[in-house]
Amino acid sequence: MGSIDWKVNATDGNARAGTLTTRRSVIETPVFMPVGTQGSVKGIRFEWLEDEIDARIILANTYHLFLRPGIEAICKFGGLHKFSSWDRSLLTDSGGFQVFSLADLRKLNEDGVEFHSHLDGSTQFLSPEISMEIQAALGAEIVMAFDECPPGDAGYEATKESLELTARWAARSKARFDELSEPGAVATGFPNAKNPVATAHGSDKQALFGIIQGAGHVDLRKESLERTVEIGFDGYAIGGLSVGEEKTVMYEVLEHIAPQMPSDKPRYLMGVGTPEDLVEAVGHGVDMFDCVIPTRNGRTGSAFTSRGKLNIRNAKFALDDGPLDPDCGCSVCRRYSLGYLRHLYQAGEMNAAIMVSHHNVAFFMQTMRTTREAIVDGRFQPFKAAFLAKLRENEAGGV
Amino acid sequence: MGSIDWKVNATDGNARAGTLTTRRSVIETPVFMPVGTQGSVKGIRFEWLEDEIDARIILANTYHLFLRPGIEAICKFGGLHKFSSWDRSLLTDSGGFQVFSLADLRKLNEDGVEFHSHLDGSTQFLSPEISMEIQAALGAEIVMAFDECPPGDAGYEATKESLELTARWAARSKARFDELSEPGAVATGFPNAKNPVATAHGSDKQALFGIIQGAGHVDLRKESLERTVEIGFDGYAIGGLSVGEEKTVMYEVLEHIAPQMPSDKPRYLMGVGTPEDLVEAVGHGVDMFDCVIPTRNGRTGSAFTSRGKLNIRNAKFALDDGPLDPDCGCSVCRRYSLGYLRHLYQAGEMNAAIMVSHHNVAFFMQTMRTTREAIVDGRFQPFKAAFLAKLRENEAGGV
Repeated sequence: MGSIDWKVNATDGNARAGTLTTRRSVIETPVFMPVGTQGSVKGIRFEWLEDEIDARIILANTYHLFLRPGIEAICKFGGLHKFSSWDRSLLTDSGGFQVFSLADLRKLNEDGVEFHSHLDGSTQFLSPEISMEIQAALGAEIVMAFDECPPGDAGYEATKESLELTARWAARSKARFDELSEPGAVATGFPNAKNPVATAHGSDKQALFGIIQGAGHVDLRKESLERTVEIGFDGYAIGGLSVGEEKTVMYEVLEHIAPQMPSDKPRYLMGVGTPEDLVEAVGHGVDMFDCVIPTRNGRTGSAFTSRGKLNIRNAKFALDDGPLDPDCGCSVCRRYSLGYLRHLYQAGEMNAAIMVSHHNVAFFMQTMRTTREAIVDGRFQPFKAAFLAKLRENEAGGV
Repeated sequence: MGSIDWKVNATDGNARAGTLTTRRSVIETPVFMPVGTQGSVKGIRFEWLEDEIDARIILANTYHLFLRPGIEAICKFGGLHKFSSWDRSLLTDSGGFQVFSLADLRKLNEDGVEFHSHLDGSTQFLSPEISMEIQAALGAEIVMAFDECPPGDAGYEATKESLELTARWAARSKARFDELSEPGAVATGFPNAKNPVATAHGSDKQALFGIIQGAGHVDLRKESLERTVEIGFDGYAIGGLSVGEEKTVMYEVLEHIAPQMPSDKPRYLMGVGTPEDLVEAVGHGVDMFDCVIPTRNGRTGSAFTSRGKLNIRNAKFALDDGPLDPDCGCSVCRRYSLGYLRHLYQAGEMNAAIMVSHHNVAFFMQTMRTTREAIVDGRFQPFKAAFLAKLRENEAGGV
């Protein structure tokens, strides 16, 4: 096999059930990838992710790890797997999204982007080549091309210019990635490394995914798709959605773009989204997702359930001895009551954040598993209708 | 059996290895009881405490639970076990210590103590009778007499007056406890309950421990011991140590008081302490301990290890791929490196607090287990000498 192996096991309309095999794990899709920004999923120990939640792949953020602890440090441990002790698959993003959303941008030109670290103000530089070298050093199974992320409200011309830059950066990403995939290749161009950064896994190749941009402009999305496919990647991602645009815009882009993405490669919708979003996107043929909301919302006591969202801070739960979600089989729902979780949250106990985050991630994973089953059984449409209807049950009383 | 069963399995000098059996668990002593102030051990899910750390008894704080969520709420769930889902033994304190250390004291007289809640300033009242009723409602296996806790620097006369009040309160605690232990007894005097608070376990009796006070004055401690034993309790505790006095004072009190405590009852040293303190106190015949430091220190990255304390924030650990404690078999030490834990702490990830707290509690529990083995084998003194010597190894470079 190459860097990854991809098989579509079943389709139902545009929806697909697939199997993505990396050198470290077998991943059934559609799949939700929990986000481990700093090489750790916030509030959820790896033991839970492995033994109960059974996440086969998680995401880590190049930008954050690049700034702290730094790539040299992670290289000393032998890459991100060894550093973190996560032995299953990893996907790293390119750093682009965070540079454009978190950092103080200094200079953006053809070569790359100079920025000030949001941590200490230090001047840093990322380019397609450097991103590839960092990601080679981190050693994830799947790495992402370095793209420019235009603001969500970018106009047509600005978006067009941006996606052209992204296309040129995609080609450069691919070229450097291919060089680094050669046996014995060394990332000599990595400017912050005291020593050249050797690729973490030698000839044991990583997979590289290209990213389709184009904001809410469907024709630009199509152009971006064509140009990205022309370069040729191991998988394709849709970037720059769920960045503040109307939900109808996101769904329109998904409807027109996702089914057009190469069917023989995995399709990944970056940074999305709610359970509704996931199931909608699966209906358009998306296979992979990541999003911070299960853990971010979990930390504020906001739970995703099969009946919609609820917030455990709500006083009405004070005496409720039922679980967050009676239909959820996770270890939190099997054991802890709303009343107890609410008490922990009100008392400022971190166990509240820990347990609501746990449930949320488990619920997202479980949602993707039941979605897969529906696709395999050829009943995706009725499943989706019932799933979305049930989600609305709590809406009146929720959040 | 009565409320609890106590057997001394072996002695070595004054040190004892015992077995404390409650209606919910068999507890081998010496034992460290993790503190679950709010009905939850900070940062450590019950699953870990049960499956790996194997805590058979944890402590919960009456004062905190009384103020929030309130006893009525916990009664609605059927007591603290059902509310929290902790099915093993619980010990609740009387609320006295927190009233005197956290609350804004309003009025202290023979009857009890009026105070302002540290949460919302509301006026509250606790007395021996009310504390007994609250603790009956919470339903712990072991409950504590309501005592006055004089300041750590209290002079001789003030301490004497205080311990006399504590003795009268101990007698009242016992009287009310006995009434509440009758089948069908109802706590009618509980002033904040809309309805009388029924005892959570009917005739399934709780155990009541008396508390010896007397600050650093050994003769007053002896007097307090005598007066407490005269009343007669299921176990005896030493309170008011480790509250700011010199360590030599604590050790002097332990040396003179602990061996004089009734040998046919468990002996409990409240709120103490470091691993050194625990092993020293065991040497004087103490059986039970609780303390917040494993979790409190864990939250700031401070780890207790067999070689002494270390703080994972220390830059020297940045590239260290070894565990917190190479001699510890806990799930954190078996898997995660100092460098990774330091990274998580520096990045503000709660998993750092979670995992250092976990290790610390596991280390305290393990220390008590190895201490017990040494007592059973008749090698407590050499064990203690070696344990204390090893603890000093890190002192130069630690914290």
